[in-house]
Amino acid sequence: MKKINKVILAYSGGLDTSIIISWLKETYGCEVIAVVGNVGQKAELEGLEEKAITSGASKIYIEDLTEEFVYDYVFPTIQAGAVYEGKYLLGTSFARPLIGKRMVEIAKAEGADAICHGCTGKGNDQVRFELAIKAFAPEMPIIAPWRIWDLKSREDEIAYAEERNIPIKINKDTNYSKDMNLWHLSHEGLDLEFPENEPDYAKILELSKTLEAAPDKATYITLSYEKGNPVAINGVKMGGVELIEELNKIGGENAIGTTDMVENRLVGMKSRGVYETPGGTILYSAHKDLEELCLDKETAHYKEMIALKFADIVYNGLWYTPLREALQAFVKTTQETVTGEVKLKLYKGNIVNAGMTSPYSLYSEEYATFGEDAVYDQKDSAGFINLFGLPLVVKAKMDAATKREAK
Amino acid sequence: MKKINKVILAYSGGLDTSIIISWLKETYGCEVIAVVGNVGQKAELEGLEEKAITSGASKIYIEDLTEEFVYDYVFPTIQAGAVYEGKYLLGTSFARPLIGKRMVEIAKAEGADAICHGCTGKGNDQVRFELAIKAFAPEMPIIAPWRIWDLKSREDEIAYAEERNIPIKINKDTNYSKDMNLWHLSHEGLDLEFPENEPDYAKILELSKTLEAAPDKATYITLSYEKGNPVAINGVKMGGVELIEELNKIGGENAIGTTDMVENRLVGMKSRGVYETPGGTILYSAHKDLEELCLDKETAHYKEMIALKFADIVYNGLWYTPLREALQAFVKTTQETVTGEVKLKLYKGNIVNAGMTSPYSLYSEEYATFGEDAVYDQKDSAGFINLFGLPLVVKAKMDAATKREAK
Amino acid sequence: MKKINKVILAYSGGLDTSIIISWLKETYGCEVIAVVGNVGQKAELEGLEEKAITSGASKIYIEDLTEEFVYDYVFPTIQAGAVYEGKYLLGTSFARPLIGKRMVEIAKAEGADAICHGCTGKGNDQVRFELAIKAFAPEMPIIAPWRIWDLKSREDEIAYAEERNIPIKINKDTNYSKDMNLWHLSHEGLDLEFPENEPDYAKILELSKTLEAAPDKATYITLSYEKGNPVAINGVKMGGVELIEELNKIGGENAIGTTDMVENRLVGMKSRGVYETPGGTILYSAHKDLEELCLDKETAHYKEMIALKFADIVYNGLWYTPLREALQAFVKTTQETVTGEVKLKLYKGNIVNAGMTSPYSLYSEEYATFGEDAVYDQKDSAGFINLFGLPLVVKAKMDAATKREAK
Amino acid sequence: MKKINKVILAYSGGLDTSIIISWLKETYGCEVIAVVGNVGQKAELEGLEEKAITSGASKIYIEDLTEEFVYDYVFPTIQAGAVYEGKYLLGTSFARPLIGKRMVEIAKAEGADAICHGCTGKGNDQVRFELAIKAFAPEMPIIAPWRIWDLKSREDEIAYAEERNIPIKINKDTNYSKDMNLWHLSHEGLDLEFPENEPDYAKILELSKTLEAAPDKATYITLSYEKGNPVAINGVKMGGVELIEELNKIGGENAIGTTDMVENRLVGMKSRGVYETPGGTILYSAHKDLEELCLDKETAHYKEMIALKFADIVYNGLWYTPLREALQAFVKTTQETVTGEVKLKLYKGNIVNAGMTSPYSLYSEEYATFGEDAVYDQKDSAGFINLFGLPLVVKAKMDAATKREAK
Repeated sequence: MKKINKVILAYSGGLDTSIIISWLKETYGCEVIAVVGNVGQKAELEGLEEKAITSGASKIYIEDLTEEFVYDYVFPTIQAGAVYEGKYLLGTSFARPLIGKRMVEIAKAEGADAICHGCTGKGNDQVRFELAIKAFAPEMPIIAPWRIWDLKSREDEIAYAEERNIPIKINKDTNYSKDMNLWHLSHEGLDLEFPENEPDYAKILELSKTLEAAPDKATYITLSYEKGNPVAINGVKMGGVELIEELNKIGGENAIGTTDMVENRLVGMKSRGVYETPGGTILYSAHKDLEELCLDKETAHYKEMIALKFADIVYNGLWYTPLREALQAFVKTTQETVTGEVKLKLYKGNIVNAGMTSPYSLYSEEYATFGEDAVYDQKDSAGFINLFGLPLVVKAKMDAATKREAK
Repeated sequence: MKKINKVILAYSGGLDTSIIISWLKETYGCEVIAVVGNVGQKAELEGLEEKAITSGASKIYIEDLTEEFVYDYVFPTIQAGAVYEGKYLLGTSFARPLIGKRMVEIAKAEGADAICHGCTGKGNDQVRFELAIKAFAPEMPIIAPWRIWDLKSREDEIAYAEERNIPIKINKDTNYSKDMNLWHLSHEGLDLEFPENEPDYAKILELSKTLEAAPDKATYITLSYEKGNPVAINGVKMGGVELIEELNKIGGENAIGTTDMVENRLVGMKSRGVYETPGGTILYSAHKDLEELCLDKETAHYKEMIALKFADIVYNGLWYTPLREALQAFVKTTQETVTGEVKLKLYKGNIVNAGMTSPYSLYSEEYATFGEDAVYDQKDSAGFINLFGLPLVVKAKMDAATKREAK
Repeated sequence: MKKINKVILAYSGGLDTSIIISWLKETYGCEVIAVVGNVGQKAELEGLEEKAITSGASKIYIEDLTEEFVYDYVFPTIQAGAVYEGKYLLGTSFARPLIGKRMVEIAKAEGADAICHGCTGKGNDQVRFELAIKAFAPEMPIIAPWRIWDLKSREDEIAYAEERNIPIKINKDTNYSKDMNLWHLSHEGLDLEFPENEPDYAKILELSKTLEAAPDKATYITLSYEKGNPVAINGVKMGGVELIEELNKIGGENAIGTTDMVENRLVGMKSRGVYETPGGTILYSAHKDLEELCLDKETAHYKEMIALKFADIVYNGLWYTPLREALQAFVKTTQETVTGEVKLKLYKGNIVNAGMTSPYSLYSEEYATFGEDAVYDQKDSAGFINLFGLPLVVKAKMDAATKREAK
Repeated sequence: MKKINKVILAYSGGLDTSIIISWLKETYGCEVIAVVGNVGQKAELEGLEEKAITSGASKIYIEDLTEEFVYDYVFPTIQAGAVYEGKYLLGTSFARPLIGKRMVEIAKAEGADAICHGCTGKGNDQVRFELAIKAFAPEMPIIAPWRIWDLKSREDEIAYAEERNIPIKINKDTNYSKDMNLWHLSHEGLDLEFPENEPDYAKILELSKTLEAAPDKATYITLSYEKGNPVAINGVKMGGVELIEELNKIGGENAIGTTDMVENRLVGMKSRGVYETPGGTILYSAHKDLEELCLDKETAHYKEMIALKFADIVYNGLWYTPLREALQAFVKTTQETVTGEVKLKLYKGNIVNAGMTSPYSLYSEEYATFGEDAVYDQKDSAGFINLFGLPLVVKAKMDAATKREAK
């Protein structure tokens, strides 16, 4: 490997990436430029500039990626209806590729020799970051300290930091491994590592109230969608970032969108996590409801299968691939008529549809209902059943004939 | 059509099938034998014998199908994880084929000339009944009065009944079209015909409390599964029928399993319905959770796709087909290790996993967690990512090369 | 049904549609306008105008649809790689919707009251025509004489025609039921109705030589594709219609593209047919080869599944549906880089790839081959295998542990 | 790693594994036991015992796996209809897991410390071998010299062998990388590495004649299948091994089953190869034909999708996984009625169906054909089309309504 003079580091301000700055400088004798992708992690962004510099970075980029995150990553995934293993709304998964792409852009602008991230060698995020880097800078060296250095634990890290006077803030109370952004907050580790344990939600939850603590009175909201994208709450138009923030508040207050699952990581093992996605869960639910009204059966059913693949693709960090583009083209076409309003009742963890309308509704009570009508001739169904059931008749006759013969 | 002397009628005791007895006798001058398939509709079964005879039937069979229903239809569908359009747990769908099969058996034993049902020409049930009949008696004539007679509405029916002194009990209060069995209760019609209306659950629900009326204190239960089948509640072994009844009580009390959806019928139109499936929803949820622990990723993901097809097959009444058998063979193979215990917290409509264990668990905290370990070499993931990401590298290089050339 | 004054008839000049003109006039006392969609049926088009008028039509439209057929129907289907049941290249299937659409346009322009076609009640074409009509004129009455009149056989038809002096040309020699267009020629009926019979190709084939009669010397051609569409033969650019005609000649000469199959019709029964698709078979083959070079694995594999659905959709006449549009959007996205040249050797029924190139090739001998290299570190595969195989390790250990316990 | 005293080596007698014996002994100071899995590689097996001992092995096992290979690996894959990327019949793919499994058995019996194979770090076979080993001996060390040693090329190997007087037979004429077994022979390397090159089949082919050299007269054979398995040729019952050998002769003589493709390897890159599978291609073709007769449409269509996954699973070496078992259970269920006789005409590379019969045939000329009949009422199709097309009608009306409104 050639001499490394300048490294771009995906920086979070946490323990890992703080000591990585020192480690990079010690190991390669290089300059380290910290990059933070702001995808809505809020409080975690405070004081990062000073912290990075104090920790030894020569420079820090704090990139506001929230708009791009919402419109180019989150919304297409909602439209796809993509849910990983039936539960996970992909909050971390689709943030990583975006941050990875921006890091490549900065690396190129800065003439950096390598890109570094602080992901462990056991998780999905290393893959997601590195695939994004490979997609835009296929020959860029990637440094993943956790796969190289001798530090093996949190304790090793703390010792390393203390030896070097690296400023770290260790919060002994919440040692869950967390990932926060505009869309979600995830929790892993500690007692959650044992699937036999019930999560202590009162201790874990940060975005949401517990079911018990949520109000005893329902909150009603109306969401408006245009071509599959949410555009307004209670008739008030707003941008995607603001809309999600608002729904996080409303959803969190009503204990919406907390999930506990044992999931299959890309790298071959299972892990267990708790996810808070209050606003996102509402958006998925309302979008699904509206599609019931606006998509025809064949499209809706095939799209269920597309959603499974889309979720895998996103989870596995394969965002910048031809298949994701092709799947998204499929999905986009289906969303042309997913426009309308969905009223929801939010109550103690429940999202209950409270009525919906769409100018493109394919529901027609004329056809569906009982009683006399002119638009649908019930006699047609006799013919329909005869043809639909013809293969069963042919098979039954064949069965009977072969049985007769066998006697 | 040759002379019809004896007809087997799928009888429910409701308005429709009560007047059908008279209509059959008037129209064909035939004997009518009523058949009731007991799939757990409970109160609806009371007094049926007397009612059928009074209405003109020569005989009535009340067949206890509950065991067969649970073990041969319900449990395989839970194992498949089959949910129609993401919401409907198929309660009516898998009851119809079983009843249809038994009707054929009785028709053959009785030497009947035809089988009759009271389904309308707009619904799925006509298809489900008739496909079952075709599968076991491909040449049996089927009489579907709603597709033939001149009665066009409930009012016509009532007039018809009154003219002939057919005993009918009309419940003006609950004119929803309903289907009840051990597994669920469905509601259609009236205000539900308009998707813009919020259902008045306090009025509609019969098996379940409303969210608001459910207790403020959670109920915990532990379900035991063996090879994908539920076998015990809180450690108490019980048969499938009893187990579902018990869970219906517990689930209903906690407002679990009420669904409102606009669904795509087989016969081409959308309809809107409310389903109560309290026990079933709990069984699906716990089974899904346990599979997270016991199935490997590739199996679990492919099974999600199989589940979509299985749901379609069941919904469409294609139970007695080679494809259902093949899909079920797939599913059965996957369930060999789906054995274990799942603890659930039930609270105001929410089912929350409260810990689970399995002797066949594929979860291993050794692999999943952070910190030092010997079983998993983090360096491996560098190689993994390089190969997993190789197609992206090749594509990126090709893109760059073609762009260079284009200049 | 209201009075029918003017009917648009899908006219072919064959026995069926010739007598239908008379039958329509007799039955409805209406004017009949014949419409012929020219999709490349060539010789069959000769003399149609005179024949239609003599048969009683008031007017005839002979619509040249060949360009639209090729670019909007044939090429997207090649791009999808759609093949029905592994064999049928959908020649009739995608012609019907186009003709149906044009009939609606003419019916609207002419102020007609109904559209009529001569398809039997047992085939797919009635469905394809009628779905196209429903898609563009949902309330247009459709007349399908074969489902209405008393004529039950070819003999009945001939008698009917002779009674009325309808000019018919009956070719006793070739009584196969055929459908011809630019893309293919199909044969059904007679001895082919029995799957135990070997087709007498020397008698059947019209576009192609038999395998034995094809030349003993191979023909080499080079096809050029741009974004998935064929644009040139042997470096000579030509329009799609001309290109297919040219390939039909070359392919037919070399006995390419004859298929014999028992297929599953949409309407519930199996049928047996022989298809000649000489040029089409070449186009599919070369396109598939080129995709091997230009598509990445994930896209290629998922596209195989999309192709299955696309074929079903086209076969079933569901061209004008949202799902076909969405699938086509998927496919189109994948074709951006399917550009290049494929050399083929055609020899006695065989299409043999004789070399191919693409500026977007993702094949790289650097990566694939043995021997020393810098671009790919073989050590990476150790890590890859360890992670890829981790689920097997976990499962094997669990199996061993549960076995130990069982002892 | 602990001291390695005894290693089981997957031995072929070729250059690679010959020098590996020496390398293992030099590197680990261990005993080397050679294992050859006889899966029908014939001539390659001659003299192996002597050669292995001369090369330094302490012992050799030559295991006859042919029966197991055919019945447990080949036949289920034929039944699945699994073809990788539309062309490759998986000849190498399903042999590796079987050999790997036997190596584990021998390793355990011999108390060996490690298993070694001679696959390169760029191919699929390393994965297939190692996954099989992991499945049966999850903690068994695996030695893959190509990923470890300093030899980088064939030339390096030859030099290494000559230094140590290892007996090697270098055939300069045929330096293609080959894999031979009962089912197929594959060729890679040299001029084939460039997809723009036409393969020189006269030089490459070993099992088959070239198209041109095949006889000018067709060969007819009749294959009998029972429950999806081939059991007789021309009415002569024979075991699976013999049957494939016989078909290889007949097929090879008629130039059947040569394929040239650019395929996507599991390890991320494309490679190009030529495959000879004369007998196998015949077996797949006849089986597919027979399924046309014996499977109903829904099963046949879904099975096409299953086949895609089955092929991926086999190609990727995931034979010993729950998903392969579940897919195979699906397939097996479908094969219950795939019994019958298929007559084939083999002629210069072409396999032409020449008639087939089955006691379980679902084809019925009664239903399929034209003319008068009693079993199928053509009027039924009107009702069928009205319901099948209802979604198009609803959509067309909605489109019209929204357009009207937009004005």
